[in-house]
This record gives sequence, structure tokens and C-alpha cells, in this order.
Amino acid sequence: MSQITESNDLTLEDSMLEMGQRARAASTRLGTITAEQRTTGLNAMADALEAAESLILDANGRDMAAARDKGLSDAMLDRLALDPERISSIARAVRDIARLPDPVGAEIARWSVPSGLDIARVRTPLGVIGIIYEARPNVTADAAALCLRSGNAAILRAGSESLQSALAIATALRSGLKGAGLPMDAIQLVDTPDRAAVGHMLAGLQGQLDVIVPRGGKGLVARVQADARVPVIGHLEGLCHAYIDSDAAPEKAVSLVLNAKMRRTGICGALETLLVNRSLAQTLLPAIAAPLRDAGCELRGDEAARVILPEMTSASEEDWRTEYLAPVLSVRIVENLDEAMQHIAMYGTGHTELIITENSTTAERFLAQVDAGIVLHNASTQFADGGEFGMGAEIGIATGRIHARGPVGAEQLTIFKYVVRGTGQTRP
Amino acid sequence: MSQITESNDLTLEDSMLEMGQRARAASTRLGTITAEQRTTGLNAMADALEAAESLILDANGRDMAAARDKGLSDAMLDRLALDPERISSIARAVRDIARLPDPVGAEIARWSVPSGLDIARVRTPLGVIGIIYEARPNVTADAAALCLRSGNAAILRAGSESLQSALAIATALRSGLKGAGLPMDAIQLVDTPDRAAVGHMLAGLQGQLDVIVPRGGKGLVARVQADARVPVIGHLEGLCHAYIDSDAAPEKAVSLVLNAKMRRTGICGALETLLVNRSLAQTLLPAIAAPLRDAGCELRGDEAARVILPEMTSASEEDWRTEYLAPVLSVRIVENLDEAMQHIAMYGTGHTELIITENSTTAERFLAQVDAGIVLHNASTQFADGGEFGMGAEIGIATGRIHARGPVGAEQLTIFKYVVRGTGQTRP
Repeated sequence: MSQITESNDLTLEDSMLEMGQRARAASTRLGTITAEQRTTGLNAMADALEAAESLILDANGRDMAAARDKGLSDAMLDRLALDPERISSIARAVRDIARLPDPVGAEIARWSVPSGLDIARVRTPLGVIGIIYEARPNVTADAAALCLRSGNAAILRAGSESLQSALAIATALRSGLKGAGLPMDAIQLVDTPDRAAVGHMLAGLQGQLDVIVPRGGKGLVARVQADARVPVIGHLEGLCHAYIDSDAAPEKAVSLVLNAKMRRTGICGALETLLVNRSLAQTLLPAIAAPLRDAGCELRGDEAARVILPEMTSASEEDWRTEYLAPVLSVRIVENLDEAMQHIAMYGTGHTELIITENSTTAERFLAQVDAGIVLHNASTQFADGGEFGMGAEIGIATGRIHARGPVGAEQLTIFKYVVRGTGQTRP
Repeated sequence: MSQITESNDLTLEDSMLEMGQRARAASTRLGTITAEQRTTGLNAMADALEAAESLILDANGRDMAAARDKGLSDAMLDRLALDPERISSIARAVRDIARLPDPVGAEIARWSVPSGLDIARVRTPLGVIGIIYEARPNVTADAAALCLRSGNAAILRAGSESLQSALAIATALRSGLKGAGLPMDAIQLVDTPDRAAVGHMLAGLQGQLDVIVPRGGKGLVARVQADARVPVIGHLEGLCHAYIDSDAAPEKAVSLVLNAKMRRTGICGALETLLVNRSLAQTLLPAIAAPLRDAGCELRGDEAARVILPEMTSASEEDWRTEYLAPVLSVRIVENLDEAMQHIAMYGTGHTELIITENSTTAERFLAQVDAGIVLHNASTQFADGGEFGMGAEIGIATGRIHARGPVGAEQLTIFKYVVRGTGQTRP
């Protein structure tokens, strides 16, 4: 991880470009190795992580001390902290990724055409992926492992709070690669907190960076969206809605809303706004509100909802636009499915949207017409997760409209090419 | 097509934003109609094109007169010119697209997970697609029809040379949509030659534009690449190579190279650089050169090639980087497959690359390792075409690395969402 510190005579821009060239060279080599070699590399990375436990904990201790000095919140400190158990859980996640099916070279489709050509659509790596993320040190290993599983080289940019931990983890991962005979530069981490490094990545490192994946808060994502000159697979806001239809089963509605909102409030699949069909609201809303309040959730309602539950605070226009990521739920009474879908079209972020109903016709209309990466019928929005989808691991949930939507796993970090086999055909 | 001319009080920016909002509204409606309705719309568009023949020919006459005044080349004038036969061929292409399978709502995959959730990955439209193109008037109909087949709204920006023709065609298409009861604003064409309109499109029309597809020369594509704030499905350069391996069948090599270079020299799949294995060059190169020269092709060779054919002009570094789109071929002698693949990695544009060999092991190495949208074995590069691939029609050949590579047809103008059906599951 020393390409920058070893070359003090290089400017940051030069060293970033060099990093890009090394990544490209590594990515080209990754394209010529087998799935088994990638699997061996991943397991070696996991072993190396466990072997480097004390180095990683030392580095994490330095990050934690600096974070305490800066007065970071307890929640932030908890996210940043590593211990032996967390390190072995990071290594376990890498081993899980090693067991995932390798997508590279898989034939997605194959057909013949009248000219006699045999055409196959075959998965290939994207190339070089830049991942820009914030505090959690485990992202370093997760992202690097997913990139390797899919045959991609990774250029990682950690947040300054977790930089020492990330460097120690990346050093371990690289030594694992080296031990397995794979190119170390398949995983590189920017080893300076200088924010200008992000600017160079967003500019694309002179064509060496193929895709950027931002993982972090709104500020980071907004900057990436605004400045990237490279395609972005965006993990943006998750302003998730649940619509309780007139044909909902009340007890299901109560448990689904409680789970969707409160299981974990800080994740992107957490429920933020509840839309309740007027016909059920009078009886159902109090039944939903009681366990939420017991669990410490604040409710903010529109006028109609506050007629039913006057103790709710009043929801403003701003509430409909806010991803709380906290124990707060906004509540609106709607007349029907169409009004619910209009609200979602207006305020949704294309992440995860839920309908609760026993009427399958209504459910199918919602599932077909609501435009989001994930649309759910009678299941908690907290299932919005690559692991829960059987994809093994994810680098995030994409809310954009191209390349991939929903959980982005190894398969979604590939593209395809057409392999055409002929017998000398010329085109008339 | 009058949203701008009718509202002289609006600035260009305002009217472009309004166009974006109308497109979004149309795109939302397109998401709720059936495949049959889209098919009906497409056939109505084709009928309307034929009914508007004289209006379209009048408009084309104005474009042609202006183009002659500007001194456009004969090739440009030929591309621009319409006649009754060309108009019916444009209508026929729209009817062909009407017969294509409708991709929207198709289930790509479906599986269950241990929690009992039923998960389906289902194709959905991209949303609103901006297409920025140059002279050929037929692109207006082709692009609009492919967008409608895939459930997308289109905002079209024609080149100024073909603007009158494009407006007449777009007006016909919109009247076809209207007659079929579909939203006219699913197809809109920017009705001003003001180049600032392109800038507004590249900025994304405040989130109303989901993807931009540029179709045109290097200058246009470079501008789109540099300035787009929206994902681009890029139709860039096609600097295509053929590598003649030591195990090539000579007669196949002669006919494939002649066809790949000379069938049509102006298309992106035309061959530009020939790489010949040294072991065959002495005998094969003269056999390849003779019919090429008879067909009017200039050859430019490296030093080794010029030893064999001294009448060739000398190829410079610039030649290896040039997409001639003309009857010119650069020729280089290489030692082996690896040197050929290195040349392609260095100078290729990720479009279409060909190996000519009877050795299937060598062929498979080339097909696996060469990084391009299309890799071919023993078939002309001129097959790089959605129609030849059985995809019906294409909006271009993508040379980028995300979302789609190779021919971009109706299916490639879609994305997917996850439809999750549960029975009340909460996440533990």
C-alpha cells in the first residue's frame, strides 16, 4: 500500500494515475485466470486477514483514538471499532464470497442465426472499479472480495476516520493475493486522506477507472453524482414506503410495519413513510402506533392521521422528503391505491416499496406499476439485502436506472460480450 | 412538435425542462399499458409515416436545398436524401420493430429463498431516453420505435442538416401514437437547431432524462462523453482488427478480410487494421492485397509488411489509432497471438475484433481474452449489427463497459426490478 508514500516526488495526480495503470494491468491479468484461482485468492485473503489481526487492531486503535479526539458520536465510534470477533467476521464474509458462484465467463444466452453464426452472450468483468466509502472498516474487505469474485480490480478510497484500519486490512488482503500468486494491484487503497484523491477518481484516472461505486451518506453521494465523469452504480437514498391497502390483514400490517421501521432504523431498507388506506385507518392506525411507540418510534402524521391519533406531531412537506434513518415514521392517509402510488412516484427514491394487502389483483398492480429497484408484497422492507435475496453479498443497493438495480452482488459487477463463432462467413 | 414554437415566451431551458416533464409523464403512462398496445402504437406510427409521405418529402426537399447551399459532400447529401422508396423502407423498419418481442415485464429469473420469499427479476423500461444524432433522417423513426417497443419515452435531437425532415417524421409518428390512444409525448423532437439544447439534455433536464444515446461522429460523441451528467450508452469508435493466425486457412483469410474491409467502409464494424502472423505473411499478404487493391483499397504497412509488399505506403503510429471509415487498411506483421492481442488491447476501441484460424484452442483464447463488445472467430466484422445478431433492430453498438455492450436493441433499453412476493414475513 505504499505506492504514494514511496514516491514523494510524484504529485498526487501522478500517483493516482499510476494507481489506475496498475489496476488496469492487474485487471487484464485477472481476465486470464480461472475461477478456481480467484477462489484460492479469496481464501488466501481471508487467511491473511486473520493472520494480521494484531496489526489491524493496532491500526484501528489509532483510528479510534483520533475519532474520540474529534468527538465522533458513540454510534460512529461503534461503527468504526474492531475487535477479534469483528475481524473474524470480516474474514468469514470473505470466505462466504469465495464460495459464491464465479460469474466470469458464464454463458448468459446462446443462439444461432440464419447466416450460420453461433452467438453467445458471455459475462465479463467490468474492469477497474473505484469504491468510495466512509467509516465502516469492513467495507474494505467486502468490496475488495466482491470485486475479485467478479474478476475486477478495485481502487478503494476509505473515509479519513477509518483510514488506518482500512490500510491495515488492505495490506493483509494484498499479501493474501501475493501468496496465492495473483496480482497484488487487483486491490489498491488510496493511502492519503487528501480529498483531492476523490476528485481524481471522479475524473476517471484518464480512462483507467470504469465504474465508481459510492457507499456513504448523502453528502458523499451527491458529490459523486455531481462530479463523476465515469459511470456510477449508485447506492443512494432509501426513502421506503409501505402502503396498507383496504384489503390488508390487520395483524400482518401491524407486524410488518413494526419490523420494517424498527428492526434496524439506520439501514437504507428501513421504512420511512406509511401510507394507510382511509377505510382501515380508524381501527388500524392505533393498533400500529402502540407497538411502534413502545419501541421508541416517533410518529408524524398528516391532518387526517392526526384526527385519529391526535398525539402525533404534524408531518410537514419536508417529512415526506426525509430519509430519517432514525426511529421516526411519517404517516399519511390515502384514499386508494392510485393515491398511494402517486405519493410514492413523487417522493420515492427508487429503492424499496411495499404493499400490504390480501387482494392479489391490487398487489400485482402495485408490483407492476411502482418504479423501484425492489417492490414487495406482504414482506418487510428490511429484506432489501443481497444476502436475503440469496446473492451472497452485496456492495450496495443500486437506485439508479442503468446497469443494475436493487442489491449489487458479484453478478451485477459484470458486463457481457458477444462471442461469435463462424466458419468463414462473409456478409452479403 | 410545437412545444417550443408555441411558447415564445419561454426560454430554451424552460421549454427543454417542460419537454422532460412531458416525457416523464408519458413514460409513466407507457409503464401501465400492455405489450399489445405498444405494438398497435408502432403499427400506427408506420401507417402515419406512409400517410405523411408528401409532407416528409417536402420537408426533406428544404433540408436538401439548404445542404446543397452549404456545400455538403455528395456522401452527406445521399445520406440525407429521402424518396418514396426510402420512406416506405423507414415505415417497414418500424413494422419490423412492432413484430419484435416486447421486453417489458418479462421475467428474467425467479427463485425462492429460505425465508419463503418468492423473488423475480423483471424487465422494466429505462424511463426517458435522450437520443442525440446527426444527419440520417431514418434515425428519428428507428430510435423512436425502439424506445416505444421497450416502454421508454424518447427525446430526440436531430442534426441541424436533417431537422426539417426529422420534424416531419416525428410529427407523423406522434399522430400515429395519438391515433392509437397512446401519449404523443412518448416521442418528442427538439425543434430548434440551437446547440444549447444539447447542453440542457446533457445536464439531464433536472432528473427527467435517464440515459443519453449519442449517435454520430467523433466530435458529437466526445462532447457527450465530456459533458454528460446522465449515464451514456455510448456508440463510439469502431477501430476493428482482424488477426490472421499461423493456422489460418488462406482462402478464408482472403475472403474475410476483403469483406470485412470493403463490403461497406463507412460503418463502425468495418475492418481498419489487419494483423498477420509472420509465418503466413510472405505468401498470404500478396494474396490478400490483390483483391483489396482491385476494389480500390489503399494499404499502409509496417516495415515488415513493406518488405513483402514494398508498394504499400508506410503506416505511422497515427494509423494504428485511426478509424478510417474509408477504403484504407493498415497492416502489421506480428509474431504470435499474444502480440496481436497486445496490439488490440492498446489500440482497440472495444467494438469488434476478429481472429481467423483453424486452430480452435487459439480461437478460444482470443475469444476469452480479447476485451470487446463483440469477438468473432472466422466471420466478417461486418456482421457487427443487431439485425445480423437476430435482435431485430439496434440503436447502435455500445462500446462502453456498463449496462450493455455490442448491439443495443429493445432488450438492452430496459433495466430490471426485483418483485418480491411474501406472506407476511418479517426479518429476524
